[in-house]
Amino acid sequence: MDDRLKKQLDFALEIDKEKNVFRQTHLSGHGRNENDAEHAWHMAIMAYLLREYSNESVDISRVMLMCLIHDIVEIDAGDTYAYDAESIKTQSERENAAKERIFSILPDDQRAELTALFDEFEAYETAESKFAHAMDNLQPLMLNDSNGGADWREHKVSAEQVYSRQIKTRLGSEKLFEVVDDIIRKNIRNNNISE
Amino acid sequence: MDDRLKKQLDFALEIDKEKNVFRQTHLSGHGRNENDAEHAWHMAIMAYLLREYSNESVDISRVMLMCLIHDIVEIDAGDTYAYDAESIKTQSERENAAKERIFSILPDDQRAELTALFDEFEAYETAESKFAHAMDNLQPLMLNDSNGGADWREHKVSAEQVYSRQIKTRLGSEKLFEVVDDIIRKNIRNNNISE
Repeated sequence: MDDRLKKQLDFALEIDKEKNVFRQTHLSGHGRNENDAEHAWHMAIMAYLLREYSNESVDISRVMLMCLIHDIVEIDAGDTYAYDAESIKTQSERENAAKERIFSILPDDQRAELTALFDEFEAYETAESKFAHAMDNLQPLMLNDSNGGADWREHKVSAEQVYSRQIKTRLGSEKLFEVVDDIIRKNIRNNNISE
Repeated sequence: MDDRLKKQLDFALEIDKEKNVFRQTHLSGHGRNENDAEHAWHMAIMAYLLREYSNESVDISRVMLMCLIHDIVEIDAGDTYAYDAESIKTQSERENAAKERIFSILPDDQRAELTALFDEFEAYETAESKFAHAMDNLQPLMLNDSNGGADWREHKVSAEQVYSRQIKTRLGSEKLFEVVDDIIRKNIRNNNISE
């Protein structure tokens, strides 16, 4: 087998490990914790189906690929819960080391391409990145809401904490932020999110 | 919320159930059984990274979407193991009923689009379908090989059975079929697949 194909298959096998990175979010139906690979799959399909609500015109295939690969670094760096202030302090350093190791398994051109796409997602500046982040925010919110807000209650999350993250959903989609805002308000009323 | 958006979000929540459909394949590192959502995520990334090996030129975003949605019907129909002859007899009927129910949650235009994409995958005729199927074949083979062929041994799978499925990988990619063929031959030599 030639060297290029071997590297591509080695990377394909390496990312299998993302299925073992579990998140704080629980599956609908009061299920188990979700893992990163499932979350990424869900986001990519949602991005495609909801693309008409992006504030700006997007290249939807780039958004989908961004959704699919945005958590690969967590194979090494672990999942950082959105409301865990201590872990967030070291998140960038851990994820940069992971990005270097994991994407370097690929041939150079694909390493550069996926690294750039990951960096673009993190930078939160392009239309594609903003819409992918809207999915990254909406998807767990939708699951948590379907479970009666159990994850918010468990972690004693405040409205300020939820809004500090979810306000940026507006950057990707004003329309979907309306949905998000309705869900948050309902969960504040129901005492799942503290005021 | 308007009716269209409500339908789209209802569908997004419905497909969360795909994460509970488990396959015969085990994750690398002698892990647990893989579920359909993880498998679809893995296939979509592999399709993107390996697209240069498609026999025919493909619209890679359509291939990726096909990979992502191809197992949604299994929410109702369950996973049908590739080498379970009895289940395969009823697979089409079960999957058609599931397709009708699940995709009908979407607005009509998106129901029609995803149904057509699913049917295209199943028909195994277009370049995109053939390449998506190559991923559907290569991905579990790669995982199983990484685990020393344990899944083949457990199910006492024969070379004839493996080739009857994997021979069609050639339709999508001659190059990747070479990889598949090498893996199968090695596992026959090592008595993981019976001759």
